[in-house]
Amino acid sequence: MTNPVLVEVTRGGIVESRHSGAIAVVDAEGRRVVAIGDVEAPVFPRSAVKAIQALPLVESGAADAYGFGPAELALAAASHSGEPRHVATAMAMLAAAGRSVADLGCGTQMPMSSVAERSLIRSDGLPSPLHNNCSGKHAGFICTACHLGLEPKGYVLPDHPVQRAVTAALSDLTGTPLDDRNRGVDGCSIPAYAIPLDRLARAFAKMATGEGLVPARAAAAKRILDACMAEPFMVAGSGRFCTDVMPFFPGRLFVKGGAEGVYCAAFPETGLGVVLKIDDGATRGSETAMAAVIEALLAPDDAPGPEFARWLAPAVKNRRGLTVGEVRPAAGLLEAMRGLKGVA
Amino acid sequence: MTNPVLVEVTRGGIVESRHSGAIAVVDAEGRRVVAIGDVEAPVFPRSAVKAIQALPLVESGAADAYGFGPAELALAAASHSGEPRHVATAMAMLAAAGRSVADLGCGTQMPMSSVAERSLIRSDGLPSPLHNNCSGKHAGFICTACHLGLEPKGYVLPDHPVQRAVTAALSDLTGTPLDDRNRGVDGCSIPAYAIPLDRLARAFAKMATGEGLVPARAAAAKRILDACMAEPFMVAGSGRFCTDVMPFFPGRLFVKGGAEGVYCAAFPETGLGVVLKIDDGATRGSETAMAAVIEALLAPDDAPGPEFARWLAPAVKNRRGLTVGEVRPAAGLLEAMRGLKGVA
Repeated sequence: MTNPVLVEVTRGGIVESRHSGAIAVVDAEGRRVVAIGDVEAPVFPRSAVKAIQALPLVESGAADAYGFGPAELALAAASHSGEPRHVATAMAMLAAAGRSVADLGCGTQMPMSSVAERSLIRSDGLPSPLHNNCSGKHAGFICTACHLGLEPKGYVLPDHPVQRAVTAALSDLTGTPLDDRNRGVDGCSIPAYAIPLDRLARAFAKMATGEGLVPARAAAAKRILDACMAEPFMVAGSGRFCTDVMPFFPGRLFVKGGAEGVYCAAFPETGLGVVLKIDDGATRGSETAMAAVIEALLAPDDAPGPEFARWLAPAVKNRRGLTVGEVRPAAGLLEAMRGLKGVA
Repeated sequence: MTNPVLVEVTRGGIVESRHSGAIAVVDAEGRRVVAIGDVEAPVFPRSAVKAIQALPLVESGAADAYGFGPAELALAAASHSGEPRHVATAMAMLAAAGRSVADLGCGTQMPMSSVAERSLIRSDGLPSPLHNNCSGKHAGFICTACHLGLEPKGYVLPDHPVQRAVTAALSDLTGTPLDDRNRGVDGCSIPAYAIPLDRLARAFAKMATGEGLVPARAAAAKRILDACMAEPFMVAGSGRFCTDVMPFFPGRLFVKGGAEGVYCAAFPETGLGVVLKIDDGATRGSETAMAAVIEALLAPDDAPGPEFARWLAPAVKNRRGLTVGEVRPAAGLLEAMRGLKGVA
C-alpha cells in the first residue's frame, strides 16, 4: 500500500519535495484512534524505543544500586548531542559500575552538536564512544550487566543476557516475537528489530499507562518517561526537537525520535501512544508530522506560540538567512488530526 | 499521480526506507525513451542546471576575455566542496575581472568537504562566500557583468541583465516560459524555476547535441560540458558522485547533481538527456537512481567494477564501520532500465 503525503517542503509557494509515511495513534488496549497509511507494516523503530530498552536498567535494580536519578535515566533513553554534560554523565554512569569508555561497544561518532564538534576539532581532540549519541544507553547496558554480576563484554550481541532482557522487554511491550527473522543491526551495533507500527504505538500507550504490564515493569516505565520529561536536555540536546518540545507541555508529553524518520510519543493524560514513520527516512518529515500530532492532541484550541510553530512549520532558509520556503504538514495530515482533537 | 519507488534502503535484508521519484530520458527532439513516474510535473532543478546557467559566461565572450579554460568553466557549473583548489580558482576568476569576494551575493557556507571544514575550524577561520558551493557560478555571473560593462551589484535579482540572460538561456533550452509564477529563490539567492522534468531532460539532450540551438549556443554548450568532463574535480570535489563517476566513462558522460534529490545527465554518444527527481529530496536516492541509469546506458554488458558498484549500491555502515545494509535501485527501476539498454 502507498502511504499518503504527510509533510510538504515548499519553495516560493510551490511544493518542492514531499514526505509520505504512516502514523498510528493507539491506546493501551490496541484500539486505533487514528491510523494513517499502512500501520501494520513492520518498521525499524531505531532510537525511538530507547525508553523501552532502558527498562532492564531499572527493573534489574541497577539504576538504584548506582544511585541513578532522572538525568542518568533520561540519558539511558537518549540520542544525545555529545555536549559536555551528556559526555560527563555517560562517563559517570560507567564509573559508578567501575567501568570506562573502553567498555563501550557503540563505536565513535562526532558530537551531533555542531558547537561541541567545533570545540573538539579546535582542541585537536578525536571523537570517542562517549560522544556517540547512544553512549548513555550503552552505559546503561554495561551497568545492568555489572549489577547482575555478568561480564559486560559482548553486551551488544543478541545472545548476551542483557541484550536478551532488552529484547524480551521490547517483545513484551509490542506483543511481537523478535528473532533473527526480523532482526538487523543498529547504528550502535545492538540488534534492531522491524515491528509493525501499530504495535509500537501500543507499546508507548502501555508505557504511559502501565496497562497490561506487571507492576514492576509499569513502575519502571513511569520512572523512565518521567525522567525524560524532567530532564529533556539529556534526551537530545540544545536546539533539538525532543529537548525543545517536551517543556512546552510539562508532564503531558514524552516524545523521542529515531533514525530514518521515526518518532514515538506517549501522552500520560489520555493514555495514548503514537509512532510514525516517514517512508524515506527524513528527520524533517518526522519532526513536522509529530509536531502536527502533538498540536492536535495537546493544544487543540490554542494558536501555537511562535516557539512551537517553529517546529510545526519550520522555515527553509537560504545561505544568506532569507526564508525561501517552509516545511509544513500536508492538508491530509491536518485533516486527519482534526479528527483527533475530539479525543484529547 | 504517485511516483514509483526507485531506491530502497535495507537493514539486515529488510527494506527500512524507500525513495520514490520520476525519471525522464529524452532525446533532443523531445522523444521520451524512458519515462518513469510523472515526468510532466514541474520540479526545481536547483544546481543540476548550472551548466545551462553558465552559457552566458561563454556566449558573452567573458570566458575568453578573462582567459578561462576548462577548470574555470567547470567551476562555473559546479557545486564544489570548498576545497583549496575550488576556493583559489573562484578567487582568481573574480580577480580576473578586478573583483573580489566582497562582490559575491551567494552567502557563506561551511565547506561541504569535511577535511576542508576541519582545516578551517582548526585555523580559527570563518567560512566565506568563496567556500559556498556556488561561488564559481557566482564568480561567472560577476565576470559576465563586468565584461559587458554592467554593474555587478544586484546580479542575483531576476531583473539584473545577467540574471535575465541566464533565465533566457534556461527558458530557451527547456522551451518553458519562466516568470514569477514558477519562481522561487535558490539557496544561493538567485531565482529558481520549477520546470517539467521531461523538458529539463530535453534541455540536456540539446546541450549534448546542439540540436535546436543557434550555433553559438551549441558551441558554448559543448565547451561547458567538455570542461566538466575534463575537470570533474572542479564540478564537485573529493569523493563526491559527479567527480568520481564521470572519469569511469571519459567523454561519454556529463552528470551533475542538485539539491533536493535532482540529478541531470547528458550522453554525447547517444544524444540523450536525463533528469530525475526524488520526491523527498534525498541525495542518496538521486545518486543511486542516477547510477542505475548510467550503468544501463554506458555499461550494459559489463559487471560494474567495485569502484562504480560503490555508487550503484552503497553500503549502509554503522558507527563501528560494519556494513548493516545497502542503498540499492528498486526492482522496478532496474526493470525499466533494462528497456534502456537496447537504446544505447
